[in-house]
Amino acid sequence: MNPLDHVEFRRQGHMIIDFLADYYENINNYPVRSQVNPGYLVERLPDHAPFIPESIESILNDVEKDIIPGLTHWQSPNFFAYFASSGSTASFLGEMLMNGFNVVGFNWLASPAATELEIVVMKWLSKLLQLPPAFSFSGGGGGVLLGTTCEAFICTLIAARDKMLDQIGRENYEKLVVYCSDQTHVGLMKAAKIVGIKPENVRQVMTTKSTNYKLSPQRLEELIKRDVEAGLFPLYLCATIGTTSTTTVDPLGPLCEVSSKYNIWVHVDAAYAGSACICPEFRHFLDGVEGASSFSFNAHKWLLTNLACCCLWVKDKSALTKSLSTNSEYLKNKATESGQVVDFKDWQITLTRRFQALKLWMVLRSYGVTGLRQFLRNHVKMAKDLERLVTMDSRFEIVAPRYFSVVCFRVSPYAINQHHGNHDEVNEFNSKLLEAINATGLVYMTQSVVDGVYFIRFSIGATLTEDRHVKMAWELVQDQATSLLGTLAPKKASNGKHTKQIEDHFM
Amino acid sequence: MNPLDHVEFRRQGHMIIDFLADYYENINNYPVRSQVNPGYLVERLPDHAPFIPESIESILNDVEKDIIPGLTHWQSPNFFAYFASSGSTASFLGEMLMNGFNVVGFNWLASPAATELEIVVMKWLSKLLQLPPAFSFSGGGGGVLLGTTCEAFICTLIAARDKMLDQIGRENYEKLVVYCSDQTHVGLMKAAKIVGIKPENVRQVMTTKSTNYKLSPQRLEELIKRDVEAGLFPLYLCATIGTTSTTTVDPLGPLCEVSSKYNIWVHVDAAYAGSACICPEFRHFLDGVEGASSFSFNAHKWLLTNLACCCLWVKDKSALTKSLSTNSEYLKNKATESGQVVDFKDWQITLTRRFQALKLWMVLRSYGVTGLRQFLRNHVKMAKDLERLVTMDSRFEIVAPRYFSVVCFRVSPYAINQHHGNHDEVNEFNSKLLEAINATGLVYMTQSVVDGVYFIRFSIGATLTEDRHVKMAWELVQDQATSLLGTLAPKKASNGKHTKQIEDHFM
Repeated sequence: MNPLDHVEFRRQGHMIIDFLADYYENINNYPVRSQVNPGYLVERLPDHAPFIPESIESILNDVEKDIIPGLTHWQSPNFFAYFASSGSTASFLGEMLMNGFNVVGFNWLASPAATELEIVVMKWLSKLLQLPPAFSFSGGGGGVLLGTTCEAFICTLIAARDKMLDQIGRENYEKLVVYCSDQTHVGLMKAAKIVGIKPENVRQVMTTKSTNYKLSPQRLEELIKRDVEAGLFPLYLCATIGTTSTTTVDPLGPLCEVSSKYNIWVHVDAAYAGSACICPEFRHFLDGVEGASSFSFNAHKWLLTNLACCCLWVKDKSALTKSLSTNSEYLKNKATESGQVVDFKDWQITLTRRFQALKLWMVLRSYGVTGLRQFLRNHVKMAKDLERLVTMDSRFEIVAPRYFSVVCFRVSPYAINQHHGNHDEVNEFNSKLLEAINATGLVYMTQSVVDGVYFIRFSIGATLTEDRHVKMAWELVQDQATSLLGTLAPKKASNGKHTKQIEDHFM
Repeated sequence: MNPLDHVEFRRQGHMIIDFLADYYENINNYPVRSQVNPGYLVERLPDHAPFIPESIESILNDVEKDIIPGLTHWQSPNFFAYFASSGSTASFLGEMLMNGFNVVGFNWLASPAATELEIVVMKWLSKLLQLPPAFSFSGGGGGVLLGTTCEAFICTLIAARDKMLDQIGRENYEKLVVYCSDQTHVGLMKAAKIVGIKPENVRQVMTTKSTNYKLSPQRLEELIKRDVEAGLFPLYLCATIGTTSTTTVDPLGPLCEVSSKYNIWVHVDAAYAGSACICPEFRHFLDGVEGASSFSFNAHKWLLTNLACCCLWVKDKSALTKSLSTNSEYLKNKATESGQVVDFKDWQITLTRRFQALKLWMVLRSYGVTGLRQFLRNHVKMAKDLERLVTMDSRFEIVAPRYFSVVCFRVSPYAINQHHGNHDEVNEFNSKLLEAINATGLVYMTQSVVDGVYFIRFSIGATLTEDRHVKMAWELVQDQATSLLGTLAPKKASNGKHTKQIEDHFM
């Protein structure tokens, strides 16, 4: 047995490429949201590992039979749920090379190319995003590839925490305060908990519809003042460019201004919308980032990069490495001691790290800046078109303004109330509508709630999505709404035309 | 531009498979440890991302020309550094499927197969390791796939921390104490720092040569007693099966016994050696694990699984999920509410998660239990043979006993001192020897230090390593030692025969 025999590697590798190419070719044949029941696979598979080796043919057969029915097809052009994971051929190839080389680049020496290519792509990206020079290696900062935004939260939180505690003394640990809005990603709350911020000291500034759910600098400052008066120590603010529920954009400039008065570390979380900011016309959403301490976005969301790839930049790299450095006899080496190299293990939570830069490098080169911008702009245009369609159907309303490629809408209380229904019933109606839409298997969308209002998030970002998929999905929403409204007022006949049409396509 | 066009995916995918198959076929032609200088790649590559798309042919050309020279070849059969990352075809294929599907399995609904296959493989592995039923889902515990051991440390530390603080009150946060030995992986110190354990409250129990650098239960209890008397709260112990420097094995049974008296969470870190314990003859190293609270090992080290894949089991799953659960409107779904499913986002630091179970499933099926055991046993046998060779050359000495597939040795003070040299000079000599060995490019080994003694760690674990590679590497060590000893006493001629022979092979 040679598990890396190149002949067998070649044979089996080609099989999987064909398997996956077929998968992409036929992805429309699968229901977007998996339709299996809890336990379906646990029941099907054997209770213990096989004793004797099995053939790749037999395994692939089971992937088709057992695994694919249990997938929710994130790469489907009809996937409009959550934020998409926009995979691409170039990124897939980068992952292949990364996995093939399978090097562990914890420090420079362990694989110099891994570290240096990461420095290069982070520089490329930072230029595309027009990040201020203070975030670059030459400016005292630098960029690093992590897995996810939660990791970026933890790394920056503990850098800020330790820097602050050095000044005010560890006895004030329980007095550190973290600020965000009620729209900030839940990952921040989890990260704050992990690094030991007292749960009562995480302030979620309330947002309102009148300001499009943006974090208000005034409200922030009120809270900070109150905390300072109470003898607490403001530590960290998370501002978001493209919140999860409605993709709103917090006002970076004013928030950084307030924060700088109180020496607060400002982290900018642009997990989803950061990618769009490589287009000049969207760059203004990052205005003010020069006042922030750190910035991150997930290339795996909307920059054609496979999971998982979070890009983090910091201004004060020594704060980060001071908190995250480790030293051990078994990792000592001359390159590190020379001070000429970066050891990225000191920029992240873990020691082990993969050669992630390869996939970003391949994405940037294969599609070029022009290709990436076109990809992003197409999605934004589709969302704009959808927004227009929604406003043209008087039964629907836009719940929050569209900024990028997510449209937030619902069937309006008016359309429902002309039959009957109170606030809860309106939410319930929209929830039923979403379930009816997803149950068709033709598309997948998800929901959120702001200010007690339940709505459908139509999130465009899958690589294969084209105009026609969005239009077809919207017709499906309309048809399902017609049907469901019909059940409220039986005298109005439901119109099944569009659903029928899509079902034909689906068959 | 369609970045997931199946025709282009197929064409380019096949190219990369051939590229990597060629790489494995020719891997002996590369120096194992990269020989580039700091900055080599940053200087070579352009300063900004290309505007216009580039062809895969041109990118692959640059991978060959710019990237490969900067790789340290972890998949080389002559890689004996650190702990190996034992990749395999099956695991590579699993990664391909994972990346191709590119689903985000944060909760069950987001891709049921991802969650359920993970439950299945964790059950398979737990049976192979003969973990006690308390670690299984049906026993109130369960297993989860993380990236690395550092993550396992953090997840279990905060589960233990929050459970304890619930009992003793948050005001005692600064009184929590974590125990380990001076041989415990540095990742634990980092994790303790991240979760806010007071740095002075991390106790590294000193180990000694006389007990083969094992964590002594007696010393542990002395420290615990002292802490309890001082009003502190013992929280967490990390015991190691296969330490990084010498692969020693802490006595689990007695350590758990002491810990249970003080209600301490015991985590067993078997990052490297855990894999070996699927062989019945090595399972005894885990004896006593039934007294532990959690157990983890890295399949990416020695179980033919590509980076990164850490398997963690806990006894008290509710302690884990209580600390790590998040809730948000945009992730709500009926499956979760039904309580019938596992949402692995609540078992880990991050929200995003990849479909890692695929690769483990493919490894277990492709090689079978019998193939995996054979793979592990081969490495252990090679290490045994090497150990014998080392003891047969009187100039060398074994620094710590061999347990698995790592041999720790050095040129003995006697061999050096008959020329001249004190303790520091002995260390320096061995350090120079290691550098001379690695500078040949023919092999890569690394060092460690215990009790002030610098030694060479000959770590066997790369997938392609065979008997002949180990023997050739040992001859190279001998030859380099002969040369270097010759420089100490010029009258003794160096013997270059073996080096010559290997260089011929290398050309």
